[in-house]
Amino acid sequence: MEVLLQLHRSQPLSLHVPGHKYGQSLLAMPGIPDAARRMLETVMNIDVTELSITDDLHEPTGMIDEAQRLAARTFGAEQTFFLVGGSTAGNLAMLLSVCEPGDLIIVQRNAHKSVLNGLKLAGAKAVFMMPARDVASGLNIVPQLSHLEDALNRYPEAKAVFLTNPSYYGLSVDLRAYVDLIHRHGKMLLVDEAHGAHYGLHPAFPPSALLAGADAVVQSTHKTLPALTMGAMLHVQGEQIDRTALRESLRMIQSSSPSYPIMASLDITRAMIDFYGGTALFQQGLATAAAFRHWIIEQDQYRLVEMTEDSSIQTDPLRIVLCDSSGKLTGFELQKQLERFRCYAEMADSRYVVLLFGMAASADDAARLQQALLAIAIASDSNKSITSTRPQEKPVITEIPYQISEPVLFGRLGARRNGHNDSQRVNLEEAVGRKAAEAVIPYPPGIPLLYEGELITFEAVAAIRQLVNDGARCQGAADPTMQTIAVVSLG
Amino acid sequence: MEVLLQLHRSQPLSLHVPGHKYGQSLLAMPGIPDAARRMLETVMNIDVTELSITDDLHEPTGMIDEAQRLAARTFGAEQTFFLVGGSTAGNLAMLLSVCEPGDLIIVQRNAHKSVLNGLKLAGAKAVFMMPARDVASGLNIVPQLSHLEDALNRYPEAKAVFLTNPSYYGLSVDLRAYVDLIHRHGKMLLVDEAHGAHYGLHPAFPPSALLAGADAVVQSTHKTLPALTMGAMLHVQGEQIDRTALRESLRMIQSSSPSYPIMASLDITRAMIDFYGGTALFQQGLATAAAFRHWIIEQDQYRLVEMTEDSSIQTDPLRIVLCDSSGKLTGFELQKQLERFRCYAEMADSRYVVLLFGMAASADDAARLQQALLAIAIASDSNKSITSTRPQEKPVITEIPYQISEPVLFGRLGARRNGHNDSQRVNLEEAVGRKAAEAVIPYPPGIPLLYEGELITFEAVAAIRQLVNDGARCQGAADPTMQTIAVVSLG
Repeated sequence: MEVLLQLHRSQPLSLHVPGHKYGQSLLAMPGIPDAARRMLETVMNIDVTELSITDDLHEPTGMIDEAQRLAARTFGAEQTFFLVGGSTAGNLAMLLSVCEPGDLIIVQRNAHKSVLNGLKLAGAKAVFMMPARDVASGLNIVPQLSHLEDALNRYPEAKAVFLTNPSYYGLSVDLRAYVDLIHRHGKMLLVDEAHGAHYGLHPAFPPSALLAGADAVVQSTHKTLPALTMGAMLHVQGEQIDRTALRESLRMIQSSSPSYPIMASLDITRAMIDFYGGTALFQQGLATAAAFRHWIIEQDQYRLVEMTEDSSIQTDPLRIVLCDSSGKLTGFELQKQLERFRCYAEMADSRYVVLLFGMAASADDAARLQQALLAIAIASDSNKSITSTRPQEKPVITEIPYQISEPVLFGRLGARRNGHNDSQRVNLEEAVGRKAAEAVIPYPPGIPLLYEGELITFEAVAAIRQLVNDGARCQGAADPTMQTIAVVSLG
Repeated sequence: MEVLLQLHRSQPLSLHVPGHKYGQSLLAMPGIPDAARRMLETVMNIDVTELSITDDLHEPTGMIDEAQRLAARTFGAEQTFFLVGGSTAGNLAMLLSVCEPGDLIIVQRNAHKSVLNGLKLAGAKAVFMMPARDVASGLNIVPQLSHLEDALNRYPEAKAVFLTNPSYYGLSVDLRAYVDLIHRHGKMLLVDEAHGAHYGLHPAFPPSALLAGADAVVQSTHKTLPALTMGAMLHVQGEQIDRTALRESLRMIQSSSPSYPIMASLDITRAMIDFYGGTALFQQGLATAAAFRHWIIEQDQYRLVEMTEDSSIQTDPLRIVLCDSSGKLTGFELQKQLERFRCYAEMADSRYVVLLFGMAASADDAARLQQALLAIAIASDSNKSITSTRPQEKPVITEIPYQISEPVLFGRLGARRNGHNDSQRVNLEEAVGRKAAEAVIPYPPGIPLLYEGELITFEAVAAIRQLVNDGARCQGAADPTMQTIAVVSLG
């Protein structure tokens, strides 16, 4: 950031890309308020390209190298790579660098779609593990340790284990036992820690995956720390990760014209943590979230996802997962109601709404949210018309088709062929027992309910039907209403 | 952009990512001027995520869909996809959607590295065509039409032809005859038009690839139009492109949290063109560039790359390619000298410097550049110490190893294996006749001199040696000094 400012202050003459020339080329237009132009113009002051003094993300030797080294120290990594393509870029690069075509990897089934895409691009073979489930909330966490041990014993050829921790709902476990087990088997642990970029920075947060000893960790710095969207980091430690291959994969996946504002926002985030210290930085947000939790517990209309004192499942104190305790409002409905009060939630599902409190969340913010929740509760009580017509207790899908799947070969050929040449559309209900020829990905959270080639279970069909009825948006499927689904043709 | 502003004005309470909460979380720090914080803070006002009103780039049905439709109309496409990962994302997606593993595609050899990476990820087979060369300047353009016809006749199984037009130096040809030929053979034409996002918008510019009839075209909107870096567009027309596959590939490659400021800057760019019209928009920049060209022609120290009236090669009036006419200063040296005057060029090679004039380039900008060039010329004349020790006339590499290569199978397995398992390092001069086990990519322009697996010719070694001597930076190679190179082991 300092180098970019220094360049800006020197009043450089840009004879290079980008074409906005430090914002100079943005002109006023009727209909677009001047304020809008200035929003882009100001950031364009540091939106530069690879000059001799601005280094090169893909071959860093100057300021970017230094910024990455400082970040590695702050986040506890041996080496840190700045990402300008979000955690997506990090997940793709990890998988491309670890798996050669046909290589086997053990993967938690409820992974982000970028993990399944990484498997496809890598042409890897995945053994999926079903996540463990917290029965009280119905929410998933990483697979049980004993199942992972079974998988490692059954597939000694596995190149690595890929886990997602914490979940989108902020549930996590301490990964130390997992790291011990995986390293005892001589394997690597890759972790998608997209939702836990702040972990380990304050005593109230769970420890980070790096601290637990994971070999490579992807964090969405933009999700819970103050970086620009698409700003993320890939951290590595230990001898197992081939760093040359990782760098090569990142060069392959990420833009050859990476955004300097996004990189600068990663640098500023790191500097803020160094300067204030995590304890001071998160004090206000934590106090606000704690008071809000207390308020929720005190009233009857809403219920929090919370763990008991003796649970081994950790929660993110800045992420609040709540539902209508009467079950009248689905999560989607509650989210919609909140938006009427201009309170925008991170995500909803059929049951829950996920709310993210930032490090700067104030008592005023919480008061505004509380007023909205109270107004919604009163309206919901007195007004039958917004009452859901579905049964109060959501059917919880408990039947699990497997703990450890057979190896599934991913690859672009299979995916394309399934999707386009040998597939047919059938009614969703008739698809049970067939193989999916298209992915079904409710977004957010972006975790595929079905990947291409996966056996369609009764439970999957029920979950899709329920999500669509409740108003979820799905990516990937050709029929967004999900009345029909593409399946692999028989014979 | 309008929806983002409307959201901003409504004072929303963000309970979602990104964690900066519309910039609220960025705190003041000693050492970082407040102005710097504000540069990021202002753009954070529109750095949001997928909410009900902000649509979803990967499944657009609302404001993003509308913005893309408007862009398609303005740029003359049937359908336009906004890219947040630069032209890199567009090139990767085009190749992934057109080529299944093992499919053959005819590719111009001097393509951007993202094209070679796309071939690798797709596992495609490439037949490379050598570019044609403008003898006077020594600069490359697209392959000759007759050679392309030969290639199409020899490889009727080819799925598509991939051309790069204009070049990094702004040289292009009219693609209509290429489109006719390629369509007569029932093939698609994919064009990397990264440097020509402004083409077709003003009568002084060459026509766009879309106007010529190309099936899919990638444009770096950020390079010559006022979008934020990484903002680009992928335009398609006609029946040949499988749009479902294209959308699928884009979802695979691009971040699941795309940047709204980048998308908004694409929208603003389109709106500016619609509102002002291309003719008015580029008038100032064109006048400035024309006057500057005139000045260069009038003096003796510098020489422009220009085409004769009857040449079929077109130049970009806003892109000025010049060299020291005495040959004393290499392009790299001239670039360095210009930087002392805080005039930053787009790119240099052993001979030329490339200067980009933006649409808002003023007479003052040109005067500043002229003063710098004059001062450099005077110093260069009177001061032998900065005179290059190399011969005045650069050796022009004329020997071309092939016009049309044999098919080369790309794939990640080959690349990794070559790079890590069966390779050895040899002195650069001893590498002639061996196959490269690492890519050598001077950046900019980012066009690989060698790709992994390519036969290393005497000419390639001479070009690498010269570039490194002159101060080029190379990506991809483990030894950045290029004293040694990794080659595939024999036997």
